[in-house]
Amino acid sequence: MIERIGILGGGQLARMLVQQGQRLGLQMSVYCENKNDPAAQVTNLATISTFQDLKTLQKFCSQQDLVTIESEFFPADLLAALEKQSKAKIFPQPKLLAQLQDRGPQKTLLMKQKVSTSPFALVEKQKDLTEFAQEFGFPIVLKARMGGYDGFGTYILKDKQAVGEFWKKFSRQSWIVEKFISFQSECAVSFARNRKGEIVHFPVNQTHQVDRRLDWMTGPLKTSAALKKMLKQLEKFVRAIDYVGLITFELFETKTGFLVNEIAPRVHNSGHASLEACNVDQFTAHLLAITNAKLPKISACQNYGLLNLIGDNQKTFSLPQSAGLGHLHWYGKTENRMGRKMGHITILASSEKEVLQKLKQLRKR
Amino acid sequence: MIERIGILGGGQLARMLVQQGQRLGLQMSVYCENKNDPAAQVTNLATISTFQDLKTLQKFCSQQDLVTIESEFFPADLLAALEKQSKAKIFPQPKLLAQLQDRGPQKTLLMKQKVSTSPFALVEKQKDLTEFAQEFGFPIVLKARMGGYDGFGTYILKDKQAVGEFWKKFSRQSWIVEKFISFQSECAVSFARNRKGEIVHFPVNQTHQVDRRLDWMTGPLKTSAALKKMLKQLEKFVRAIDYVGLITFELFETKTGFLVNEIAPRVHNSGHASLEACNVDQFTAHLLAITNAKLPKISACQNYGLLNLIGDNQKTFSLPQSAGLGHLHWYGKTENRMGRKMGHITILASSEKEVLQKLKQLRKR
Repeated sequence: MIERIGILGGGQLARMLVQQGQRLGLQMSVYCENKNDPAAQVTNLATISTFQDLKTLQKFCSQQDLVTIESEFFPADLLAALEKQSKAKIFPQPKLLAQLQDRGPQKTLLMKQKVSTSPFALVEKQKDLTEFAQEFGFPIVLKARMGGYDGFGTYILKDKQAVGEFWKKFSRQSWIVEKFISFQSECAVSFARNRKGEIVHFPVNQTHQVDRRLDWMTGPLKTSAALKKMLKQLEKFVRAIDYVGLITFELFETKTGFLVNEIAPRVHNSGHASLEACNVDQFTAHLLAITNAKLPKISACQNYGLLNLIGDNQKTFSLPQSAGLGHLHWYGKTENRMGRKMGHITILASSEKEVLQKLKQLRKR
Repeated sequence: MIERIGILGGGQLARMLVQQGQRLGLQMSVYCENKNDPAAQVTNLATISTFQDLKTLQKFCSQQDLVTIESEFFPADLLAALEKQSKAKIFPQPKLLAQLQDRGPQKTLLMKQKVSTSPFALVEKQKDLTEFAQEFGFPIVLKARMGGYDGFGTYILKDKQAVGEFWKKFSRQSWIVEKFISFQSECAVSFARNRKGEIVHFPVNQTHQVDRRLDWMTGPLKTSAALKKMLKQLEKFVRAIDYVGLITFELFETKTGFLVNEIAPRVHNSGHASLEACNVDQFTAHLLAITNAKLPKISACQNYGLLNLIGDNQKTFSLPQSAGLGHLHWYGKTENRMGRKMGHITILASSEKEVLQKLKQLRKR
């Protein structure tokens, strides 16, 4: 029997999930707001409505065997209700998602499972910030508990005055405060775990942010004792929370070891190169995990890199001539807005040096 | 401006063309007969009608910048009319397709351009067969001029009696006769040529037929003086006929060199592994060629193999657990009919030996 998979969301992550699911012979449906959303273009099974239209949402879910999400910020309560009303199983599990999508419980979970991460506190009043700064020193990092991504919803406060200004402006939202970490580099790694409990992870990637957004990345990161320690902690964590599906950890590499910066309970921009570089890609791994198929050990066949193609407000589109240098993925977004992720190019090469050279060449165009 | 590409046909070749085109940011539409045809599942731009419905066909073409075909047997006259009536350019060019889809003119073209191929003759009367056999000896090979594929429409006649029986049965169809070639192995190679005249070719693949149908293949074939000679002839041929798009040559390897067996003016089952094994896949190469984009030099990053998944009449489908061994491509066909190509699995490995071992493992399941 063909498994029917529904995705809530219609952006590029959903688009690539749909395309990889179709290769596996799964029936891939999407629920999204516009008929020309990136994922709606790649299936004949799109339901177009708002996420406030509960009746249509429920109908959509009841037509699926499994439902999954594109964004970790989908209301977890709504997800739980949809699971109850439909016969579809939802992954990641709504209860778990509720904890992971809120940076407060997310950090608490990490700490509870003894995963290395920066010290933090929940913020309820301005005094919480000054007290935290007294203990850990300035600067301090404020992160919105809900809805932050790509560095949005993150503020670095360098002194008491900044704390005062911040509090005046943002005290109505919910925040956590973290110790500022002086890191050497940023990395990311994704794990996949199926319903039987089999667990695999992808090679670790080095990520490079520009304007708080992933701009380019390379991999695989060479292994080290510190990295092995981190991966061991993460595998234990994924098992402990009984996660099913693909989960991505954004890491800081510091002089004294790796720390978890944030968790994205979903496929992730840092993992797109797995489409060409690995024996299994992150989208396929997520689908194998939630359908409870066997998870093969994952490895990269070459060195690789990725360059995001960021929108520049131009109205016209022409097939990037740079396609020849790498593997182009254009997301089919109808509007080329400034700063928007419009696509990416994957580079494969036999050495890290060659990857970096090719990325530089691409960057020039 | 987004280029609008229309594909006439809705099978697995169209499906993979659509998916690779979407990655390039092209607007991919298909014209096919059923709304659940493999290619109609992977786009929201499918036109469903018959190929006799000229009005709808014409409307479809007039909504495209470029139109291409899935099967070389699309009536070339109709294609020429559609090109004239719409503003879409059609590739391969209808006039050229008319010659290539008929094995008579196809062989004549090969001979004219001095490409090594087996001796042949057009067949008009029974005497043509006996005279051909007198010159080249039995067995002789009869091939239907139009519509043959996967070995269908091919007969090997071992003596005069067989000729008589054949003629009684099939004299109403059009045939060519060829000298029987005792080959050591069968291979295939695809070339892509854009509208500017840039030309590239894929690695050569070794193909293995079972029941006259591609069952499995491996590549890349090691280079040799004989192979280089053949590739040189083919490149010259593709230029001489001014072909635009991807074209596949099925080859015989004999003790004295390579011969062209047949031409398929399209993407080809033998080239599916290029999706994972090469820097550019055959579907992307076809689309780059017809959109007149730059064609990168093509190479394989590893040894590779492919196993076709052939239908066995079973009603049920479950995600092949063998997916972990390789890259699964399921075509989404609604009926699992005996002998039908339902999907394929690509294997990558660091040596030919390892590829063969993995293929054997897969075969067992």
